[in-house]
Amino acid sequence: MRARRSALRTLTSIPAKDGFRMPAEYERHSGCWMLWPERTDNWRDGAKPAQATFTAIATAIASGEPVTVGVSAGQFQNARARLPPEVRVVELSSNDAWIRDSGPTFLIDGKGRRRGVDWSFNAWGGLAGGLYFPWDRDDEVAQKVLELEGSDRYRTSFVLEGGAIHVDGQGTCLTTEECLLNPNRNGSVSRTDVELMLQRYLGVSTVIWLGKGVYLDETGGHIDELACFIAPGQVALTWTEDRKDPQYDISYDAYQRLRRARDARGRPLVIHKIHQPGPLYMTAEEAAGIDVRAGSRPRLAGDRLPASYINFYIANKCIVMPLYDKRWDAAAARTLKRLFPTRKIIGVATREVLLGGGNIHCITQQVPLPTRR
Amino acid sequence: MRARRSALRTLTSIPAKDGFRMPAEYERHSGCWMLWPERTDNWRDGAKPAQATFTAIATAIASGEPVTVGVSAGQFQNARARLPPEVRVVELSSNDAWIRDSGPTFLIDGKGRRRGVDWSFNAWGGLAGGLYFPWDRDDEVAQKVLELEGSDRYRTSFVLEGGAIHVDGQGTCLTTEECLLNPNRNGSVSRTDVELMLQRYLGVSTVIWLGKGVYLDETGGHIDELACFIAPGQVALTWTEDRKDPQYDISYDAYQRLRRARDARGRPLVIHKIHQPGPLYMTAEEAAGIDVRAGSRPRLAGDRLPASYINFYIANKCIVMPLYDKRWDAAAARTLKRLFPTRKIIGVATREVLLGGGNIHCITQQVPLPTRR
Repeated sequence: MRARRSALRTLTSIPAKDGFRMPAEYERHSGCWMLWPERTDNWRDGAKPAQATFTAIATAIASGEPVTVGVSAGQFQNARARLPPEVRVVELSSNDAWIRDSGPTFLIDGKGRRRGVDWSFNAWGGLAGGLYFPWDRDDEVAQKVLELEGSDRYRTSFVLEGGAIHVDGQGTCLTTEECLLNPNRNGSVSRTDVELMLQRYLGVSTVIWLGKGVYLDETGGHIDELACFIAPGQVALTWTEDRKDPQYDISYDAYQRLRRARDARGRPLVIHKIHQPGPLYMTAEEAAGIDVRAGSRPRLAGDRLPASYINFYIANKCIVMPLYDKRWDAAAARTLKRLFPTRKIIGVATREVLLGGGNIHCITQQVPLPTRR
Repeated sequence: MRARRSALRTLTSIPAKDGFRMPAEYERHSGCWMLWPERTDNWRDGAKPAQATFTAIATAIASGEPVTVGVSAGQFQNARARLPPEVRVVELSSNDAWIRDSGPTFLIDGKGRRRGVDWSFNAWGGLAGGLYFPWDRDDEVAQKVLELEGSDRYRTSFVLEGGAIHVDGQGTCLTTEECLLNPNRNGSVSRTDVELMLQRYLGVSTVIWLGKGVYLDETGGHIDELACFIAPGQVALTWTEDRKDPQYDISYDAYQRLRRARDARGRPLVIHKIHQPGPLYMTAEEAAGIDVRAGSRPRLAGDRLPASYINFYIANKCIVMPLYDKRWDAAAARTLKRLFPTRKIIGVATREVLLGGGNIHCITQQVPLPTRR
């Protein structure tokens, strides 16, 4: 007879003091979560092209680890019919499909336990620059995922999106000033205050600050379009050789900061540049397929899209990377193959996700496998 | 590294031919499912009294086995706040909270596997006597529960509610003519057709037919208010000694049929009578708290309520039974203690569930523990 289920707890203690840390994305996962896109003021043509692309991404990841997709009641049967049977589909409503940002940040300790941080979420800036209103369902996503995963929950009033941080799993966090110091997240907090929160909630000791995020990234400068750890001591960085492109100065500044940085173990960082696609722009036809809605960010023909190859997902057995542009896709794939020699590189044409404001990393959230040391 | 999740299947084969059977409720469970009540045209005073009662029931069952409660997005935080932390809360929408009827019927084989039957559901009679419209979310409940339990699914167009059947786990099914032969479920099927379906989908060989269900039971005569197996070869039956009560003839007829019956193993049945409460009636104050809505069954002051002690739930370590009426509660509890000597008897005052049209058994669905022989 199975024992009575132990109660899940909402904890007010400090994760780092409890012995927990956020593992790197390249550590082992027990699975991956996604949400199903449906809002027609963000996803063109009734979200059908985006749903096809999300399905391709979920299918690719599911070749490397178990995938669960959360979906509203109204879209349940549609999602279940389109997604392959190996992908689990559960009812879980949201305001949009960016689970990297609305979902929990999972932590593990060395004793085989897993917990999650349920950050406050305000749609990337609340009423002062956020992308839509309301965001109440998004702010419940982390709690619902943790309930389904059976993981205790650290709830905090601190506003943070998962796309705003990357960690190396060995004590280092990589982030941007543009996002984490923007008063539309946590008011006028100091750099020191933010570092203290990251140390406490991610179990890191060192924070490496880059400046701005990718040019025109509407999240307000998330790190996960700009740069990421691909292994301890190694970072990939989006790049351009075109000095007239506004992205040049952003990437150049990031490069200089990364060169000067030392990680939590005192190591300098090896930096791998990956040339950006494009620049890419929203077409008139694409913009015409998006509902206009008061309170949601308008999407207009000619808008430059924040495209970057850095926004890939690291699954247990594969890398799922965005494809955008025949001029640059193959070079990016070759670099990723060199950086992840044991993983299969799976490219998915993800322009439809890009049109919605992000890419593969933004719409995925890994669940790490707890380990015992 | 955990293996890739195997795909859940929707099967079109015959469960009995695949080696599956429905175990009795008194066999071991891995847990119990419930749904959260909220519709204000069925539950008085904004469903708040019913929610308090469902919480008491979930808490009682959770003392004996793990409980999960499915809830709509709009009620998620309210349910999570009211239910104790040991009860898992997941988003799972429905048209009302009768998971005995809308949920799956779980089956097991002798090889450690569990599957579920996803019957068609039409709100106890569809447009010809059903209790509300629409019932689309209810008809998705079984599929969603099976997805979350990781169980393969037999979907059938046959309309059946879980409250319309009881099994002894040894080849016998107990049901009523009033419900299963009502053309508002499966048209003009014959008794033989129905028996064939029950044999195929529940893995039984013998069907014992009683006549009518409890007087004024709005489900159209569910067995789970009238009689149930409490062990192989033993049945409990709701009873009254008042010959002027319309329930007398119903219970007397059931008693006579049970006396003549033989189960799948050829045994006669031991019959345990449990005297009904009341009769109980809806008060004017209670009726006044219920929203009037076109298409939903009206609930009126003076309505006789279909109260029966038979509608208890058998958990691994306890029996959770309804309390209604000081005149009869103690006698019913004593009988159940005698019938289930190894289980704790927990009574919950459930008039609020009764006002909605059912009781504890109607709002619960057990998940059996797979076994290997």
